[in-house]
Amino acid sequence: MSKEQTIPYKIYLSESEMPKQWYNVRADMKDKPAPLLNPATLKPMGFEDLRPVFCDELIKQELDNDTAYFDIPEEILNFYKMYRPSPLVRAYCLEKALDTPAKIYYKFEGNNTSGSHKLNSAIAQAYYAKKQGLKGITTETGAGQWGTALSMASAYFGLDLKVFMVKVSYEQKPFRREVMRTYGASVTPSPSMETEVGRKINAEHPGTTGSLGCAISEAVEVATHSEGYRYVLGSVLNQVVLHQSIIGLETKAALDKYGIEPDIIIGCAGGGSNLGGLIAPFMGEKLRGEKDYRIIAVEPASCPSLTRGVYAYDFCDTGMVCPLAKMYTLGSNFIPSANHAGGLRYHGMSPVLSKLYDDGYMEAISVEQTSVFEAAEKFARTEGILPAPESSHAIKAAMDEALKCKETGEEKTIVFGLTGTGYFDLVAYQKYNDGEMTDFIPSDEDLKKSFATLPKVD
Amino acid sequence: MSKEQTIPYKIYLSESEMPKQWYNVRADMKDKPAPLLNPATLKPMGFEDLRPVFCDELIKQELDNDTAYFDIPEEILNFYKMYRPSPLVRAYCLEKALDTPAKIYYKFEGNNTSGSHKLNSAIAQAYYAKKQGLKGITTETGAGQWGTALSMASAYFGLDLKVFMVKVSYEQKPFRREVMRTYGASVTPSPSMETEVGRKINAEHPGTTGSLGCAISEAVEVATHSEGYRYVLGSVLNQVVLHQSIIGLETKAALDKYGIEPDIIIGCAGGGSNLGGLIAPFMGEKLRGEKDYRIIAVEPASCPSLTRGVYAYDFCDTGMVCPLAKMYTLGSNFIPSANHAGGLRYHGMSPVLSKLYDDGYMEAISVEQTSVFEAAEKFARTEGILPAPESSHAIKAAMDEALKCKETGEEKTIVFGLTGTGYFDLVAYQKYNDGEMTDFIPSDEDLKKSFATLPKVD
Repeated sequence: MSKEQTIPYKIYLSESEMPKQWYNVRADMKDKPAPLLNPATLKPMGFEDLRPVFCDELIKQELDNDTAYFDIPEEILNFYKMYRPSPLVRAYCLEKALDTPAKIYYKFEGNNTSGSHKLNSAIAQAYYAKKQGLKGITTETGAGQWGTALSMASAYFGLDLKVFMVKVSYEQKPFRREVMRTYGASVTPSPSMETEVGRKINAEHPGTTGSLGCAISEAVEVATHSEGYRYVLGSVLNQVVLHQSIIGLETKAALDKYGIEPDIIIGCAGGGSNLGGLIAPFMGEKLRGEKDYRIIAVEPASCPSLTRGVYAYDFCDTGMVCPLAKMYTLGSNFIPSANHAGGLRYHGMSPVLSKLYDDGYMEAISVEQTSVFEAAEKFARTEGILPAPESSHAIKAAMDEALKCKETGEEKTIVFGLTGTGYFDLVAYQKYNDGEMTDFIPSDEDLKKSFATLPKVD
Repeated sequence: MSKEQTIPYKIYLSESEMPKQWYNVRADMKDKPAPLLNPATLKPMGFEDLRPVFCDELIKQELDNDTAYFDIPEEILNFYKMYRPSPLVRAYCLEKALDTPAKIYYKFEGNNTSGSHKLNSAIAQAYYAKKQGLKGITTETGAGQWGTALSMASAYFGLDLKVFMVKVSYEQKPFRREVMRTYGASVTPSPSMETEVGRKINAEHPGTTGSLGCAISEAVEVATHSEGYRYVLGSVLNQVVLHQSIIGLETKAALDKYGIEPDIIIGCAGGGSNLGGLIAPFMGEKLRGEKDYRIIAVEPASCPSLTRGVYAYDFCDTGMVCPLAKMYTLGSNFIPSANHAGGLRYHGMSPVLSKLYDDGYMEAISVEQTSVFEAAEKFARTEGILPAPESSHAIKAAMDEALKCKETGEEKTIVFGLTGTGYFDLVAYQKYNDGEMTDFIPSDEDLKKSFATLPKVD
């Protein structure tokens, strides 16, 4: 009996094996990511500049490029125990279906009611808000994954939560809205008449169905104008990548437990929260020169920030009220086509990942929507799990790498992040099932136009 | 440090600890459940009578009242490994929220794409159909949980699947339909024009939105008229209770691993598939006089087959084409009100459970819908999981028992079955969130009328 055969379908860590600290990959970067800039002064933003918007403890995490490990507070560890560790699954059935010598593993983050990895950071952000004695927090949500996760976290700590949900999603995704309401969040379609910016946009664009940028602006306005409230965000920020390192740390612990050495690590990339978390400890080894891995970011061809964007300072939001971040971006005015992977339709990319990519520590590829749903369907039928469209980008790339192994006969070990389930994405699956899904790739000219609107920063 | 503190939030069995056999509780019953009767002759149905409808191996399981253990075939064990073992969760947060000395555990069956325990029997039934060399299987589905589970199982074994979905659900639950289609099932709204019975019903009742009884009749007609097809069913039958014993066997193994002795075991009861499976090994001990447990079936007040029904022979379907079963029933003509727990809206109850209940081995209670959703909301906010309305009946009963312990100071150990998630039940949650949910209890007169239509059997 080979060692191989002793590896179970699902590797679960015991509670005592679960990570007790988050890992901050910035600590091992020789060249640090560029700082956030004040959009008015173009000066780096410090602790005091960020205090009106974010919770104190989270700002410290955001600005700390040196501390490698942060203790996870016990209250958060206890919440993690309710839905973590997530399983590292050996995709035996998919390997068989592909007839590949590759060994495929996926870290499955979808086994919680929010349906994705977003809960890992939501519970941390809610905790620090509660600890600071705040009454509540505000946020925006597009497709609703982040809003759902934050509703669960806020309910757990008895924190008030106000979610601005892009109006078109509010109307078209009533089920996501109801999950948030069941957890006690107030959900307002954006643009609303409750904020200055909302009233202005409604007046200027009567009948608008909203945008993520506008929802962010509304959430920030309410947070900064309400006593005892702060604003929180589910991706892009350094603090989010820090919290999400729990994914990678568990993955590494599970692999180490069975002496498995991955060759390739793959994650889908929108704002970078999942990818940054999944690869963190592996990237750390790579940065320290201890190990080498191929690390691949997968983005939609319709919103290709790493593969076709520029590395420059840009606004994090389309409303241009947030700090400037240096990142791979398509321009904050870039309007992605209606790709069904809502979580990947972000114009920019985490500054940490952008820097690592720019320094050559990872690869990036883009894939088209229809091929992603083909992969999703195959995965669902062989591995049982109906994947989120976002996650399916990583599935597609992992399958392609496994098929290359079939050609070459190499027994590579591939690990990918399965960030979530597709239970609230069935409109997209219906389109695919009906043969009505299309692909869209922005033209060079469109991108050029969008790049022209980037803010001028030296 | 007390022993108590060493119990993790979630108890997972390792692959080697997973049950390798199903347990047949009928083997330990001194008085066996009454046999199925041929509706025309009123004679007990034997192997040959059932062959045109059901798979051979499944008929053997259906009729076998003596074999205590059935080996689970390796192909099924491998599929189980993809989503099992399911966790036995210690509800620490719920206990704290209720401030109860009781210890609450729940066996969570919702962590798979079908969203419920139904997959445990679906994969078994699909396997035996494939093994028999059949081309495909047919079934009906109401709310869609069973149809989804069977789609996943059929895709795994490359079996054709034809699902007749009650027309009103087909139209109102397009997402469930799309999951089934993604797994390759053909889904037909019932009544259809594809069957004789469907055409007849459409002609007699133009514009009808269908019923479960009609869908069953269509599925049986197609199975018996198509070469290489058989019909399968997701609850009520003895074979289903047998397959679902995996729930109880895992629960017992997990409890034994930590030396935990339950006092009360609680499950929701519709057709009886979950309850029968959860309690099987515990009931076995009780029947053999080795242990005693309080075992409680929880049903909706709107469809109270155990608490207000009669123990008599009745049709399993409203179309009256299936065998007669002796069970607690409200009459096959009973039309339950629009309770949102679709999986519990069945007029009858598993003959095995009916017999055990009639012989005094278990209790039954009924609970009202609004109180069930109150419990569901509290559970979601404290334990993180958004529960299915069906499962929430067990939550409600478990919470009530825990609150009784608070009054008496007793440290009872309560185990309940959390059969699934409510991700496809958000129309119901919306009603609850909007304060528009109502309760309905059938009147004694309504029940009396329904009982009058029971078939006459000595």
